[in-house]
Amino acid sequence: MTPGFVLGIDFGGTKVALATMDTTGPVPRVLGRTRVRTAGPGGAHGVLRRSMAAAAELVAGTEGRLTAVGVATIGVVDGERIRLAPTVPGWEDLDLPRLLRKEFDGIPLRMDNDVKAATAAELHWGRLSGVRSGLYLNIGTGLGAGIVTEGRVVPGAHGAAGEIGYLLRVPDEAGFAAGRAPLEEHISGAALASRGTRLLGTPVSAATLFTRRHDPRVHALIEESLSALAAAVVNLCIALDPQRVVLGGGLMGAGRPVVHRLRTALDDAVPFPPELAPARFADEAALYGAVSLAMDATV
Amino acid sequence: MTPGFVLGIDFGGTKVALATMDTTGPVPRVLGRTRVRTAGPGGAHGVLRRSMAAAAELVAGTEGRLTAVGVATIGVVDGERIRLAPTVPGWEDLDLPRLLRKEFDGIPLRMDNDVKAATAAELHWGRLSGVRSGLYLNIGTGLGAGIVTEGRVVPGAHGAAGEIGYLLRVPDEAGFAAGRAPLEEHISGAALASRGTRLLGTPVSAATLFTRRHDPRVHALIEESLSALAAAVVNLCIALDPQRVVLGGGLMGAGRPVVHRLRTALDDAVPFPPELAPARFADEAALYGAVSLAMDATV
Repeated sequence: MTPGFVLGIDFGGTKVALATMDTTGPVPRVLGRTRVRTAGPGGAHGVLRRSMAAAAELVAGTEGRLTAVGVATIGVVDGERIRLAPTVPGWEDLDLPRLLRKEFDGIPLRMDNDVKAATAAELHWGRLSGVRSGLYLNIGTGLGAGIVTEGRVVPGAHGAAGEIGYLLRVPDEAGFAAGRAPLEEHISGAALASRGTRLLGTPVSAATLFTRRHDPRVHALIEESLSALAAAVVNLCIALDPQRVVLGGGLMGAGRPVVHRLRTALDDAVPFPPELAPARFADEAALYGAVSLAMDATV
Repeated sequence: MTPGFVLGIDFGGTKVALATMDTTGPVPRVLGRTRVRTAGPGGAHGVLRRSMAAAAELVAGTEGRLTAVGVATIGVVDGERIRLAPTVPGWEDLDLPRLLRKEFDGIPLRMDNDVKAATAAELHWGRLSGVRSGLYLNIGTGLGAGIVTEGRVVPGAHGAAGEIGYLLRVPDEAGFAAGRAPLEEHISGAALASRGTRLLGTPVSAATLFTRRHDPRVHALIEESLSALAAAVVNLCIALDPQRVVLGGGLMGAGRPVVHRLRTALDDAVPFPPELAPARFADEAALYGAVSLAMDATV
């Protein structure tokens, strides 16, 4: 019999990552991979068209038979709609689940939000393996979480569980209905970069900002942001009582100060402080998540 | 065959409620009931002894055969220990699960925290029936929540999910390790009563306080407390994306202003605002919860 492989697609804010993988072993093995940039002609439809062309080429170049497709995407997957995905204009209007099922007609397909997919990857093969109550925290360009109860990723009633970028930092502040994402505007790669750039009058990335902590103004900005993040994580842990919190996303490259701050805050304020662990899947968490989704896919 | 009945016991902060119920119909039917006050000689052991005597009498006076026992208790049920139950001194040292299994030797028994039990009652027979993603909020003397995902009450890694009294209201405030329960000290029946009493210089209950809202000082106190509550509920709903939030507990007697404030806050700040509904089981939520636990009990 021809060996089978799965296709994972991660529709991100700046790029689409695609890979074919062999999932018969204890951890998926990459057979082929490629990337598509989201910038380019045709908006969301263009992104999808280029991605499908890349997928077809990738699948054709991989030996064996495509058995399932897993798709991770920015935004919230609410049945047939993608919501809360402002990064790629037009993405919410795409009717993506239907288009993808048509594209991969007859092949089992499953899709979910990218952070939930990454959480599934950590559950399947990573640092949440065997954990029944857990939390995956993604601090990258944006901010998101995957909540695990009873060993499964919590979807929420509209696929929006874990959308912690919208959390209020303090009572009465303006929130979602006013077009705001209070926590994400405060602590995320994008927020730190733009706040740091404003503060210093010169373009800086979040990672650069962390290297300039000797500057008291930078120090104060980072401290305030980490306080907001720590309080949010503390409150999630009080509410959910996870055994372990797994930290992923690009900003975790800045690592040490973030982990230290979270550790202290959790020990100070959570009745049963959870373990903290780095994610197994760094940049490719959502891509491996897509592969994990493929393994649970149905036609 | 002799008809069977179950025994529900709710160990609360000021009283123990016991009832035998017939659970063969669509909703449990009370066959007999009694109460024991927690105040009295012998501390926690005394409470337990008097409760067991009352239980034996109640069971003896109920026609039929005792088939299962369900127990709701203050505090967190973490395996063989009760934790976070300061209201009744000595309760945490009782080894309650073992003592109860010994007392009801051979009879299926299940126990859980009182708010989680109340959540189970709402799931079984009340306003969370058929709801897969939900939240039960208990605002009584204390403050607690039951989180429902995939149609089940979330236990947490140490039985402490939903212990929202410990939530931080703002970043960096003193929390659990400092002996504090920040949110519960702000908004709960006990907190409003003591803060109102301090403010007015005369003893008031939380319910009385709500009737004096024309006093600007009282108004400000209530507003500040409701702001803290609303922000906490908003954040729980952002994190968990529930379909419905059910409100129970004594303070909900004050009702209208609390519901109104929550409704507005949820609509302002949650991407998918959940429904709000009053609990079906008011004062006896935990007792019916105990009965619900009995129905899932094993030896």
